[in-house]
Amino acid sequence: MGIVLGPNQYGKAENRVVRIYRDSLRHEIRDLNVSSALRGDFTDAHVSGDQSRVLPTDTQKNTIYAYAKQMDIDEIEHYALTLGRHFVDDVGPVEGARIEIEEYAWDRIRVDGHEHDHSFVRRGSDVHTTVVTVEGKGESQRAWVVSGLKDLVLLKSTGSEFWGYLKDDYTTLQETHDRVMATSLVARWRYRTVDLDWAKAYADIRQILLEKFATVHSLALQQTLYEMGRSVLDSHAEVAEIKLSAPNKHHFVVDLSPLGLDNPNEVFHADDRPYGLIETSVIRDDAPSSPQAWGTVPGFC
Amino acid sequence: MGIVLGPNQYGKAENRVVRIYRDSLRHEIRDLNVSSALRGDFTDAHVSGDQSRVLPTDTQKNTIYAYAKQMDIDEIEHYALTLGRHFVDDVGPVEGARIEIEEYAWDRIRVDGHEHDHSFVRRGSDVHTTVVTVEGKGESQRAWVVSGLKDLVLLKSTGSEFWGYLKDDYTTLQETHDRVMATSLVARWRYRTVDLDWAKAYADIRQILLEKFATVHSLALQQTLYEMGRSVLDSHAEVAEIKLSAPNKHHFVVDLSPLGLDNPNEVFHADDRPYGLIETSVIRDDAPSSPQAWGTVPGFC
Amino acid sequence: MGIVLGPNQYGKAENRVVRIYRDSLRHEIRDLNVSSALRGDFTDAHVSGDQSRVLPTDTQKNTIYAYAKQMDIDEIEHYALTLGRHFVDDVGPVEGARIEIEEYAWDRIRVDGHEHDHSFVRRGSDVHTTVVTVEGKGESQRAWVVSGLKDLVLLKSTGSEFWGYLKDDYTTLQETHDRVMATSLVARWRYRTVDLDWAKAYADIRQILLEKFATVHSLALQQTLYEMGRSVLDSHAEVAEIKLSAPNKHHFVVDLSPLGLDNPNEVFHADDRPYGLIETSVIRDDAPSSPQAWGTVPGFC
Amino acid sequence: MGIVLGPNQYGKAENRVVRIYRDSLRHEIRDLNVSSALRGDFTDAHVSGDQSRVLPTDTQKNTIYAYAKQMDIDEIEHYALTLGRHFVDDVGPVEGARIEIEEYAWDRIRVDGHEHDHSFVRRGSDVHTTVVTVEGKGESQRAWVVSGLKDLVLLKSTGSEFWGYLKDDYTTLQETHDRVMATSLVARWRYRTVDLDWAKAYADIRQILLEKFATVHSLALQQTLYEMGRSVLDSHAEVAEIKLSAPNKHHFVVDLSPLGLDNPNEVFHADDRPYGLIETSVIRDDAPSSPQAWGTVPGFC
Repeated sequence: MGIVLGPNQYGKAENRVVRIYRDSLRHEIRDLNVSSALRGDFTDAHVSGDQSRVLPTDTQKNTIYAYAKQMDIDEIEHYALTLGRHFVDDVGPVEGARIEIEEYAWDRIRVDGHEHDHSFVRRGSDVHTTVVTVEGKGESQRAWVVSGLKDLVLLKSTGSEFWGYLKDDYTTLQETHDRVMATSLVARWRYRTVDLDWAKAYADIRQILLEKFATVHSLALQQTLYEMGRSVLDSHAEVAEIKLSAPNKHHFVVDLSPLGLDNPNEVFHADDRPYGLIETSVIRDDAPSSPQAWGTVPGFC
Repeated sequence: MGIVLGPNQYGKAENRVVRIYRDSLRHEIRDLNVSSALRGDFTDAHVSGDQSRVLPTDTQKNTIYAYAKQMDIDEIEHYALTLGRHFVDDVGPVEGARIEIEEYAWDRIRVDGHEHDHSFVRRGSDVHTTVVTVEGKGESQRAWVVSGLKDLVLLKSTGSEFWGYLKDDYTTLQETHDRVMATSLVARWRYRTVDLDWAKAYADIRQILLEKFATVHSLALQQTLYEMGRSVLDSHAEVAEIKLSAPNKHHFVVDLSPLGLDNPNEVFHADDRPYGLIETSVIRDDAPSSPQAWGTVPGFC
Repeated sequence: MGIVLGPNQYGKAENRVVRIYRDSLRHEIRDLNVSSALRGDFTDAHVSGDQSRVLPTDTQKNTIYAYAKQMDIDEIEHYALTLGRHFVDDVGPVEGARIEIEEYAWDRIRVDGHEHDHSFVRRGSDVHTTVVTVEGKGESQRAWVVSGLKDLVLLKSTGSEFWGYLKDDYTTLQETHDRVMATSLVARWRYRTVDLDWAKAYADIRQILLEKFATVHSLALQQTLYEMGRSVLDSHAEVAEIKLSAPNKHHFVVDLSPLGLDNPNEVFHADDRPYGLIETSVIRDDAPSSPQAWGTVPGFC
Repeated sequence: MGIVLGPNQYGKAENRVVRIYRDSLRHEIRDLNVSSALRGDFTDAHVSGDQSRVLPTDTQKNTIYAYAKQMDIDEIEHYALTLGRHFVDDVGPVEGARIEIEEYAWDRIRVDGHEHDHSFVRRGSDVHTTVVTVEGKGESQRAWVVSGLKDLVLLKSTGSEFWGYLKDDYTTLQETHDRVMATSLVARWRYRTVDLDWAKAYADIRQILLEKFATVHSLALQQTLYEMGRSVLDSHAEVAEIKLSAPNKHHFVVDLSPLGLDNPNEVFHADDRPYGLIETSVIRDDAPSSPQAWGTVPGFC
C-alpha cells in the first residue's frame, strides 16, 4: 500500500480581460473574467519539485491576453474553445484543459435618444458563463461546452403556493396558497455540439427561463425549476441536459397584528439566511451523463 | 476636567422591506433597505444604564414595517421624510432622526412581448439612495433630503486623456492622450426643498450624469466629475450641492510586445487594487453648507 | 427519447446555529453554519407539483435547531452524523442526506490574566468544516465524513523557488530562487471511519499542515501541497485521501529602480487577481475513491 | 450667484504593501493597506482640465512603496505621519494630506514548539487602523493621529440585560434580564500627541476594550460602549476622545416550544439583518473637537 498523487490540476484564475474593438468609431466591448486549468501527468512537479513539464500559470495568463488580441471574441464559447484547444494541442504535457469564462454585459449610454459610440453603462445583475473542457490529443480529442448564467434575480409576487407536504414531529410551517417566490438563479446547460450560434442560443434560453418563471403557476420551487429546464430541452435539441440551482430567498409576511394592522401579503421581510436551496436537473434519457463536462477533477467541487 | 458622553445616535440598520401593492392584478413592487438612527439626550442610557428614554431599535423596526403597510411608498424620499418626522414628532426624547434608504429596481419580465403583471427581474447594478435628516420639534423643525445613486458602473473606451501633470522624484507614469476611463460612481445631491416630484428629479439627474460622462472629452476624472456635477446644478435649481465619489478603475494596456504583438489600446487588464479615488463636490456659492444633511453625528464617517 | 428529471437534492442552507452550554458558570460556545440537503425520489414534486413526499426545508431547519438543543455538540462531525442519520432513518422518502457544517472558533477573553467564564473573542481567520453524507436505509446504510478547513492564510517570506519550468512562445516569467509564497488554504480530507476522536484528529492534521508549509523548502506550490498532504496520510491511517486547493496569492517585488532604489525582496505588492490556483490530492493507492463522499449530486459543483 | 467647485480631495486607495525585514534570518513582516488623499487648490484641474498642479495618484503609489523600502515601518502611525508630512512639505500645491492604513497581523507558525523564522499564519479577525491628517505648511503645520481597530468580533453569553425602555404603540419587544450580546466592534480614538510609543498604546487600549466588554454587567449596549470608552480615557491621558460603532448582532432564542422542548437561552439563531447600530463617543470636556482629524473633506462620509 502506498501514498500517491491523486487527481490534480492547476491554472491562472480570474484574468480580468477587457477587449475593445475599435475598428470603427463605434467601439465594441467584451468584459470578461477568464480562468484556465490544465491537467496531465504532473507527478514530478509534485513529488520531486521538477517543473520541466509545467507551463507556468503566468504563461497561461499571457496566452489568454494574447488570444484576446488576436481573435474576434464574438462569443465566449468560441474564445474558450480556442484557448482550450491551444493548450492541449500545442503544449506537450497538457492532456486536458478547462477554460471558464464569465461575461459582464454593457449597454451603450443613450445621449439625446441615441446610443453613444464609446461610452457604456453596466447592464443588469446577471452574468453569462461558460465552461469548456477539452480532453485528449489528436484524433481522440473531445470537447464539451457548458454555458449558463448566474445572479439572475427573480421574484413573483403571487402565483406561488406551497402545501400538501410531508409532516413530521419537527414540522411547524403553515401551508400557503399565495406566497412570494424569489431566487437568484444559477443555470448551466450542456450543449451536444461544439459548433453553434452561441449568442443566439444563449439569448433564447435566457428568455425561456424568464418566461417560464413568470408564467408557471408554482406549487413548489422544484416544479418551477423543472418546467424551466424542460422547456429549454423541448425547444433546444442541441442541449443535452440542464442544471438549475436556486436559493429560495424567503420573503416572510411581517406579522403586523400586534400593531392592529392586517397584512394580506403586502409587507414582507426579505431574509438573508437560512435559505432553501433547490438543485435540480433535467436531462434527455438517451444522453450520456458526461461528468467530465461539468466538474473539474472529479470531486473538486 | 471631566470625561463625558460625546455625540451619539442609535437605530436599526438594514431593514429589508419589500412592499407589494396588489390593488389590481398588475402588482407594483418596492424593494428597500431602510436604516434608522435617532438622536437626543440619551446620557442616562449610557452612563447609568437607565433605558427609560430609549425607544428600542426593535420598535424602530416595527415602525418601519408598519408605515410600509399604511402609506403609499411611491418615492423613497417621501417615505423617509414621513418616518423621520414620526420619530421626532411622536417620540418624546427624540430630537433628531436620520432615515437612510436604498432602493433596488425591478423590471417586469416580458412574456410574448408584454410586461408580466406580477413577475419581475432585477434591473441594473445601480441603487437609488436617499438620506433624510429631521431635526427639532414643532415650529423649529428642519428637514434635509440628500438623494443619490451608487454602484453605477461606467466605462468609456476613448475620449479620455491624462497629461501635463505635476512631476516629482517619484513620478514614473507616462502621459497618455487616449485611455480607458472607468468608474463605479457614487453621487449624492442635497435638495433645497422637502416637497418635490422626487422620482422625476431622480430620473432626470441620473440621465444628466450618464450623458455628461459620455460626452465630456476628459482631461482628467476630476474634470469629468466637475462637469457632471455642474450640469446637474445648472438644470436643477432645487439642488443646492452635489458630491461625487469615483474610483478610477484602472484598465492597464497589456504589454504584448514580448510576444511580438502590438496593442494599440485593444486589450486591457482591469485591475482591482489600488485604484485612484477622486472625491469632489460642486456647490452654489450662495448656499449654506448644511453639514447636518450629509453626515450623521459630526465625525462619524 | 424523453426529457426526464435528472439528479436533484434540496435542503436548508446556512442555518446560523449558536449553542451555549451553561451547565456551569463557565459557559461553552459552539458557533456553527449548518446546511442540509436531502435526496430521494422526488419526481412527483418536480413533475406534477405533488409535495406529499417532500419534507419542507423549514422542517429541516427546525430539526437542526432541535438537535442542537438535545445533544452535546462536542464535535461537528458527530452532530452532522446524527442529523444525517435522522433524516435518512426517520423520514420515509429520504434515501440520502448531506450535512455540511462550518465552525467558527472563539477564544475566551483574558481578564487580569485569566480566561473569562462567558465572554469571548473570535479566533483566527480559518474555519473548521465537515461534510457528512449518509446513504441508504437499514443494513445497507453507509456514511462518509470529509472534514477540513478553509481560509487558513499562510505566507513564507523565503524558502520558495520557481525555476526550470516549461517555456513556450508565450512565456515571459523570470525564474527565481527566492520568492514570497502565500496562500489561503482550503484542505479537505476523507476519513475511513465514522467513529473517531474528531477534535483530536482535526487539531493534529491542522498542525501538520502548518508545520509542513513552514518547513518544506519549496520548488513549487504543487510540491509544498503534495508534501503537506503526504504527511497527513503518513501519520493518520484513518485518513483515506486529502484534497488541497490553494490560490497562489502573488506578491510581486515592486520595481523601485526608476526611483533609484534597489529592492532585494523587501517591498512587495500583494495582488488580488489573477491568482494561480493549484488543486491537488494525495491518496492511498488501495483506497476506493468514494466520489459520493465529496460531491453532492454528481456534477453539482 | 454662481456654481463653483466645493470641497475635494484625491488619492490612491488601497495600496497593498507587504514589507519584509530580512536583516537577520528571523524575518519580520508588515502587511498593510495604505490609502492617500491630497487636498489643496485643484480648481484648474476640475474646471479647465489643467493638471499642472496635480501629483498623479500613480506617483502617490510610488511614494508609498518607496517609503516602505526606505524607512523602518515599526508602527503604522509613524509611517503614516512620515508620508503625510512628505506630501505636504515636498509637493508645492499640496496643502493637506490624509493617510489611512490598515494593518493585518501575522503570527509565526510554531514548529516543534518554536516560532518559525520566516513562515507565518494570519492572526485574528481584527484589524489595526490609523488615519493621519497633516494640514498646513511650515510653522503652521498641524497633524492629528486617529488610531483604532475594526472587525473585533465579541460575544458574551450572559451578563447582559435589556428592560425598562420607552414603549409606544409600535413596541412589541419583551424585556429580558439575560441575553446574548454580540458585536463586531469598530473603535477609533484621537491622540493628543504625534509622538508616542504607538504600539504600546494600541495594545493596551485594545486590551482595555476587551476587558471592559467582558466585565461590565450590561444594561444596554450603549452602557457597555460608554464604559469601554471611559476606561480608555481614564487610563490614557494622551487620548482626547474615542468613538465606538457597534452593530448589535442579534442572537434570537429559538422558540422550540412547538416541538415540546424548552430553551432556556441555550440555542440561538444568529441573524444577519437588520441589526441594531449603536454609535457613541466619549470625550474630554476640555478637548477641542478637531473634526479635521476624523472626517476627510467635511461631509464626505
